[in-house]
Amino acid sequence: MMNIGVVGYGYWGPNVARNFHSCPGAKLTMVSDISDKRLGQAQSMFPFIKVTKDALELVRSKDVDVVAVVTPVIMHYEVAREALLAGKHIFVEKPFTTTSDQARQLIELADKKGLKIMVDHTFLFTGAVRKMKEIINSGALGRLLFYDSVRVNLGLFQHDVNVIWDLAPHDLSIMDYVLPKEPIQVAAHGARHVAGSKIENIAYITLRFADETLAHFHVNWLAPAKVRRIIIGGSKKMLVFDDLSPDEKIKIYDKGLKFRETDDSELRQALAGYRIGDMYVPNIETTEALRRETDHFLECVRTGARPESDGDAGRRVVRILVAAQESLARNGAFIDL
Amino acid sequence: MMNIGVVGYGYWGPNVARNFHSCPGAKLTMVSDISDKRLGQAQSMFPFIKVTKDALELVRSKDVDVVAVVTPVIMHYEVAREALLAGKHIFVEKPFTTTSDQARQLIELADKKGLKIMVDHTFLFTGAVRKMKEIINSGALGRLLFYDSVRVNLGLFQHDVNVIWDLAPHDLSIMDYVLPKEPIQVAAHGARHVAGSKIENIAYITLRFADETLAHFHVNWLAPAKVRRIIIGGSKKMLVFDDLSPDEKIKIYDKGLKFRETDDSELRQALAGYRIGDMYVPNIETTEALRRETDHFLECVRTGARPESDGDAGRRVVRILVAAQESLARNGAFIDL
Amino acid sequence: MMNIGVVGYGYWGPNVARNFHSCPGAKLTMVSDISDKRLGQAQSMFPFIKVTKDALELVRSKDVDVVAVVTPVIMHYEVAREALLAGKHIFVEKPFTTTSDQARQLIELADKKGLKIMVDHTFLFTGAVRKMKEIINSGALGRLLFYDSVRVNLGLFQHDVNVIWDLAPHDLSIMDYVLPKEPIQVAAHGARHVAGSKIENIAYITLRFADETLAHFHVNWLAPAKVRRIIIGGSKKMLVFDDLSPDEKIKIYDKGLKFRETDDSELRQALAGYRIGDMYVPNIETTEALRRETDHFLECVRTGARPESDGDAGRRVVRILVAAQESLARNGAFIDL
Amino acid sequence: MMNIGVVGYGYWGPNVARNFHSCPGAKLTMVSDISDKRLGQAQSMFPFIKVTKDALELVRSKDVDVVAVVTPVIMHYEVAREALLAGKHIFVEKPFTTTSDQARQLIELADKKGLKIMVDHTFLFTGAVRKMKEIINSGALGRLLFYDSVRVNLGLFQHDVNVIWDLAPHDLSIMDYVLPKEPIQVAAHGARHVAGSKIENIAYITLRFADETLAHFHVNWLAPAKVRRIIIGGSKKMLVFDDLSPDEKIKIYDKGLKFRETDDSELRQALAGYRIGDMYVPNIETTEALRRETDHFLECVRTGARPESDGDAGRRVVRILVAAQESLARNGAFIDL
Repeated sequence: MMNIGVVGYGYWGPNVARNFHSCPGAKLTMVSDISDKRLGQAQSMFPFIKVTKDALELVRSKDVDVVAVVTPVIMHYEVAREALLAGKHIFVEKPFTTTSDQARQLIELADKKGLKIMVDHTFLFTGAVRKMKEIINSGALGRLLFYDSVRVNLGLFQHDVNVIWDLAPHDLSIMDYVLPKEPIQVAAHGARHVAGSKIENIAYITLRFADETLAHFHVNWLAPAKVRRIIIGGSKKMLVFDDLSPDEKIKIYDKGLKFRETDDSELRQALAGYRIGDMYVPNIETTEALRRETDHFLECVRTGARPESDGDAGRRVVRILVAAQESLARNGAFIDL
Repeated sequence: MMNIGVVGYGYWGPNVARNFHSCPGAKLTMVSDISDKRLGQAQSMFPFIKVTKDALELVRSKDVDVVAVVTPVIMHYEVAREALLAGKHIFVEKPFTTTSDQARQLIELADKKGLKIMVDHTFLFTGAVRKMKEIINSGALGRLLFYDSVRVNLGLFQHDVNVIWDLAPHDLSIMDYVLPKEPIQVAAHGARHVAGSKIENIAYITLRFADETLAHFHVNWLAPAKVRRIIIGGSKKMLVFDDLSPDEKIKIYDKGLKFRETDDSELRQALAGYRIGDMYVPNIETTEALRRETDHFLECVRTGARPESDGDAGRRVVRILVAAQESLARNGAFIDL
Repeated sequence: MMNIGVVGYGYWGPNVARNFHSCPGAKLTMVSDISDKRLGQAQSMFPFIKVTKDALELVRSKDVDVVAVVTPVIMHYEVAREALLAGKHIFVEKPFTTTSDQARQLIELADKKGLKIMVDHTFLFTGAVRKMKEIINSGALGRLLFYDSVRVNLGLFQHDVNVIWDLAPHDLSIMDYVLPKEPIQVAAHGARHVAGSKIENIAYITLRFADETLAHFHVNWLAPAKVRRIIIGGSKKMLVFDDLSPDEKIKIYDKGLKFRETDDSELRQALAGYRIGDMYVPNIETTEALRRETDHFLECVRTGARPESDGDAGRRVVRILVAAQESLARNGAFIDL
Repeated sequence: MMNIGVVGYGYWGPNVARNFHSCPGAKLTMVSDISDKRLGQAQSMFPFIKVTKDALELVRSKDVDVVAVVTPVIMHYEVAREALLAGKHIFVEKPFTTTSDQARQLIELADKKGLKIMVDHTFLFTGAVRKMKEIINSGALGRLLFYDSVRVNLGLFQHDVNVIWDLAPHDLSIMDYVLPKEPIQVAAHGARHVAGSKIENIAYITLRFADETLAHFHVNWLAPAKVRRIIIGGSKKMLVFDDLSPDEKIKIYDKGLKFRETDDSELRQALAGYRIGDMYVPNIETTEALRRETDHFLECVRTGARPESDGDAGRRVVRILVAAQESLARNGAFIDL
């Protein structure tokens, strides 16, 4: 039986607690939070657990084998480090840490102690994102040309992190998972619309790769209607992921470039035309992503396998967030990764 | 009776010719093109006109009062200049010229000779764009925060201009028309995906203004499905223009920021929340934009009024295109306008 | 404190139990079901309740003040009658009963004993349906002309009731609630597509009213994509309810008939034209319907008020179902209500 | 060279004239109409033709080989008959005639004289409808279970025919073309909402076949938003045709019934479940239907082949219209075909 402790019982913590508790062979044993009210909620939902305001008590408790760190990002590193030092496997909310260096330290520490790290990149466990990866891996799209991601809606303003740190981890972790290559440069533009705030509520991020692939992300807390869409252009086919569509989340278009000779120079015609074919919507599995994810992590702990969103995946995402932040501060300049 | 001559009878020229010819008090009298085939088509459609391969013959003909310049952009300046020198009013395809300086020279020349310039920013004459301007002018949206424009589809590759010069003039002319302020800086990122081509087929453009308004444009020849959408965020309301919607082109959302005090510091809650209300879809007039535009121009010629998309509107758009091109060449740096 | 007993703990029963239990001043005390497995689930979720396989034990228990009848429809009448005889208020799943006569008997019995009946017409407690009623009541639509309802999807085949008894109660209860008048005649057409089955899986129902209003319902278990849409045509405005739209459930169109004189008899032109105006999407409250409904029922029990979906509403729906079934048997003939 | 005469130059006549005239080997030679104004329009568009107010002069002219009958339906029979008697092939607007008997007489007359009849069922020549037929013919859908057609919008009221005669010919001709079987019974319900009018503006039509296939049509002049959709349910796959979708007109769902044993009788579970798989959107050809249709007819005249929408197709549609009208008059009773 694996004993689970959850640090942080705010918005997302109860979901993490519930899902770990429902995994076969696992049991929630402790919850920690700084709020008495939230501890009361945890206790009422799980009468058999121990609750504490002291995160250290939890991470060092011998009744805990796995620590889920569901605190604000600023505290991830400290709590995760103490948990690893106490010999616990860790499941850390995204983004993993606030600096790449912190991420590297945690990864090294876990390796040294033979412990597992999993970063909660929940989207990687949805049927739609797994289908995207499967399609890209199959080579069906051909050479990857561009990756365009939009995640906008009327969302709550955070007062401790900007829209890049709040929303982009979702999209960067998806891209990191489905693309078989890593970006080399980042630029970001943003704006702040709340008087007196130093926090960007809209941002555009551009990523360059070693080849001519271009990736771009639009994240926005102030849009009137939700858009959650990724367009991936390939030389053979193209893919659209619309996360808001109830039953057509992934569309694969048999469309692409077609080169042809032109003989009508006076018309200054196109050198390249296009090809239009059928479109195809694969059926997507609909099991709950978080449940699939907690199962996967516990399986990795048991078998020693590497989690699909391990510490290094967490670090790669953090590295881009940090560079994007630096680009914002440097007037949108491209920052090397 | 106003006599119209059209230089360039390729893809768009026949539409310009037909619309001018159908204006009351106007008559198509001459068409010029370098292709015999296209001159034959013009002659067969309008048996009463004169056709010529020599554009200069047309612009200098005494049977022509107004010259429509519908050639590739590289020739706009020369033809337009000759027409003005010959005392003709000019209607010029967009983008107006290839440099701001050319635009300024044409404007000065026209002013000196008391002639009218109209740049064919067709979208300004659609019911939807006029409705957008009306709403923004009314102040209903409050303070303008951001302007996000997407125009992507599987389009023909041009071999003489990149996707910015091909598609962005539509969007920049719309923004120039509906926003009551001008941008001060431009940055652009792009990529080229046809082997050996020096022409960008995807680009992102960011515009800054003197205040915190941010504008952003995505133009793309390689997207599998059409998107033509503008989102305008205001402090009071927000507007979405979806040009592909048959009957809901403009949506006005009664949504926006709502500031509130927070008393729950431990939750690290939002400093700003949001307000959600009704949504409203105004009815849009559906008369043909180009016909409305040619009527407007001839009316201006008659009355001496200034066309809504005059030479200066053309120049403002060209200035942004030129700066975006420079930003592409300078690694995405912001270029002052 | 009001004590709640739930008879039937299959698909819907757990929701009813949970919602009643979470009402202030109410407490779940007993659950009855014929399945040991399901009783085990109830006991594990609510460790403090009593469970029994004997529905009569529950309805007669002095630990129960309100009985929720969530059994197959065939058992509604018996259980409800026993509960009323035992002096309990009843909350009955829809459809209320299998015959109008049963419904009438239950209503009389409750009246005689001063007890409340509520039929679980859940949709009446959604924000969207309440908004529809509010708009119709305001007279904004003008004279009501037609009511067209479609509820189709790939649904589970039931083996005891046909698609009319399974799906139409939703739609008939909505219509009963929002329209200020009652139908007088019913006709139904249907078909059976499972070999050997005597159960219709697709049906069309037409309702006539004393005036020229026409109502029509399409219910279908075999459609490849979900449609849940009601169109209401009025002489002044029209309304569309699309239950699948996440944020545009109700649309009110300022469109309608416009009468005009015709002077072009040779064109055999229209005698009536139409008027096109703006469209409007009201914001809809999104609280959980079932919770709002259980609150409402308990409030009625306390105050003696009449529930919005009382026994008579249940009876009116059953009356139409019975007549539709008869029409199916009589080759689609109109049946008087 | 085939000489074409067009009788009736109102709303649709100019399209028919233009398309015939643009067919290789064909030439418009005469137009007849009772309106001087419309004859003037025809003459101005086609300066080389002869115009006349006397339809008989046209049908008997030796300058005419093919007569297109584009008059109100009430006149189809007379004009078509005179044309056949004069030895001319005929192209007749839909619906073919006002009675089945008229249709039969014209067919016999044409056969006797070796002349061709084509009824203008334009939809049969669209890429989408041809694709539907191809898919159904291939057997991919399995056994056909139902056919549900909706064509509603805010349309002009006609003063001489009701909504069934106005809109249903489109849908009935599509069904006649794509389904490999014929209906045997018709029932129709409708309502009239213009005061004093005897013309139905909304109607529902149900068709029965010899097997359990059910077809249903909703036609409506008073709906606030356009819907033009056909759902075809098959035992293996299902198809949706949405004529308003710009690029996803035909969707083929790999969904259907799946039979299984049930072992949980207490749950009263479904006897039949369903299967959910991928969805597929075939690419559709987009050439103009009317042009393809006029080409096809002239080809049939030349080669003696039978047109795809011949007189008998016209007769089959008329037969259903007549029976639907009779059902309206007989209180919705099923009428044998």
